[in-house]
Amino acid sequence: MKQDGRSFLPSSKLVSEKVVSPGQFCFAVAGLVHGHVFGMISGFLGCGATLKSFFDDDDERAKDFMSRYPSAKRVSSLEEIKNDPEIKLVLNCIRPDVRAALSVSLLKAGKAVFSDKPGFLTLRQFEVLDKVVDETNGHYCIYFSERFHAEGPMLAQKFINEGRIGKVNHYTGTGPHRLNAQTRPWWFFESGINGSIIIDLGCHLVEQFLSNTSNRNASVVYASMSNRSNPKHPDFFDTGDIVLRGDNGVDGYIHVDWFTPDGLSSWGDGRTVITGDKGYIEVRRYIDITRDTGPNHVFLVDEEGEKYFNASDSLGFPFFGEYVIDCMNGTFEAIGKKDCLNAMRIAVEADAVARKGFL
Amino acid sequence: MKQDGRSFLPSSKLVSEKVVSPGQFCFAVAGLVHGHVFGMISGFLGCGATLKSFFDDDDERAKDFMSRYPSAKRVSSLEEIKNDPEIKLVLNCIRPDVRAALSVSLLKAGKAVFSDKPGFLTLRQFEVLDKVVDETNGHYCIYFSERFHAEGPMLAQKFINEGRIGKVNHYTGTGPHRLNAQTRPWWFFESGINGSIIIDLGCHLVEQFLSNTSNRNASVVYASMSNRSNPKHPDFFDTGDIVLRGDNGVDGYIHVDWFTPDGLSSWGDGRTVITGDKGYIEVRRYIDITRDTGPNHVFLVDEEGEKYFNASDSLGFPFFGEYVIDCMNGTFEAIGKKDCLNAMRIAVEADAVARKGFL
Repeated sequence: MKQDGRSFLPSSKLVSEKVVSPGQFCFAVAGLVHGHVFGMISGFLGCGATLKSFFDDDDERAKDFMSRYPSAKRVSSLEEIKNDPEIKLVLNCIRPDVRAALSVSLLKAGKAVFSDKPGFLTLRQFEVLDKVVDETNGHYCIYFSERFHAEGPMLAQKFINEGRIGKVNHYTGTGPHRLNAQTRPWWFFESGINGSIIIDLGCHLVEQFLSNTSNRNASVVYASMSNRSNPKHPDFFDTGDIVLRGDNGVDGYIHVDWFTPDGLSSWGDGRTVITGDKGYIEVRRYIDITRDTGPNHVFLVDEEGEKYFNASDSLGFPFFGEYVIDCMNGTFEAIGKKDCLNAMRIAVEADAVARKGFL
Repeated sequence: MKQDGRSFLPSSKLVSEKVVSPGQFCFAVAGLVHGHVFGMISGFLGCGATLKSFFDDDDERAKDFMSRYPSAKRVSSLEEIKNDPEIKLVLNCIRPDVRAALSVSLLKAGKAVFSDKPGFLTLRQFEVLDKVVDETNGHYCIYFSERFHAEGPMLAQKFINEGRIGKVNHYTGTGPHRLNAQTRPWWFFESGINGSIIIDLGCHLVEQFLSNTSNRNASVVYASMSNRSNPKHPDFFDTGDIVLRGDNGVDGYIHVDWFTPDGLSSWGDGRTVITGDKGYIEVRRYIDITRDTGPNHVFLVDEEGEKYFNASDSLGFPFFGEYVIDCMNGTFEAIGKKDCLNAMRIAVEADAVARKGFL
């Protein structure tokens, strides 16, 4: 399981509060192209929401899904989900190139949308989504798991918010990931369909940059992508770099690559280092190499000393219940209305800057 | 001791081979402005060279020096060192802004020069030094300690050379350092005298980038510096970033800052991560936070698994003896004739790129 990030299911012994009773808040799943969907589902089941139906045109994936969630009804078209008034929220995990269009039509149908990442691939898709969110006052969220479904990064954010490292001055986020080329669909290697490495992997770290440095926007001051060791896939990038400058002037560096070796007992040794003027935090998000194969290692060094925290089972995942309440009340307390849109847009902008190097 | 990088003395239980007998190869010390000089001296004493004399115009520093090295003679001018035919090599640790000029005059006097970093501060100084090295066929080396006086980075280089991580595709080097503002001379905060953070701290990591990625040259594709939390020192930068692209196309990112908190049990948690297409290496150069206050932690993840090496006492410091033999024979086996000049020049170029942001 740990060898493959796609099927990783975040868990915590801290049981989420049930904010709704069975049947009170129904959601559906549209598309099963990425194992992330199971993490997304578990978050909403955890807070008491009801999985009513799902759509996928692949019979094998659908069969596997029904064995996991026997009470969910398979529907034969996305229209059925859009037209079901009981369904308030749809988890959008269809193929990335058509994901934005589905989000738009779901928002127009009055549904809240919880999209797998990347939520969209182009600035034009961003503009349309941004506009429809305004017009509908709708709820649109992207599954940036580090922000609300990973206790290591969440504990780091808590320490930052508490001022434990003083004024944040720098962010470094790395997201190496195992390629697992043999298990990927053909379109994974087509950046126009799946999104480039900066869009696919980098967007997570862009969101973390914004959260960790208390920014809602940032400009891309440098970005590059390369294909260094995968010549068989000419439209594929296996390395990506971004330098961001937040609106508050704080800089961040992001590196992603598909070079995680088979000997690592996780799918990638993702790290975050947040530096403040009174201390720094390192998060080893998925593994502490040679020492602990589990996730959520948080190291805090401040003026008093060096401290280690295993953040697993420390905070639980209250976001999902808060988001369900937002969807029911028309509020935006759990996450800013445009936070996910903006993080994703910046990743798309970084992709465009990086591509200039190849024009 | 570990709180202050300046007085850190690299040591290894592996005793260096004595390549010369007492008096056969004499060296002198010019200037004692930085504790690095003691590491530099220990390297050459270790291989059998003889410390004959030293110059410093500060009586207090000279007194301390004589108590450590009672057989070294204090001379009253740099001319005495230049004119002593027994002295083959001079360790140059005078103030950074006049260091290059002394190196030039020493080379012209027929001495080999082993300079503290930064070896020079401007491109004009580089050009003059480069020319005089050519004209004299002289030996000029900068004390880039990670390359020849730190067993962690040296073991990582050995693994890279052995192909343990395949083709190197990316380098990340971070060099946070404790500011220790109260113990610094006034000119430390003047970037025209001491060099900016990119020149002072960054040059180490530029050299490591070149070594680790098998490059002898690189271009600066991005660089920035900021003063984020030290408004009392307007000509001081407490943060610096560099993105390099080596001549072979491999990218690297370097981050340096002066934000190491007092609670860290070393002067800085410097790390290097070198990514190849078959594995990666992490070097925790000076500390493994919360676990080991000693230096030289090397983690290798390859296709077979995750491996930890404590590199202390693993390789010793053969460079110094090899360099002495080079100086005696007029050869350049221990290190390329221009390696240090080029690494330092790239740091100076990065400084210039970063300053453009402030014009």
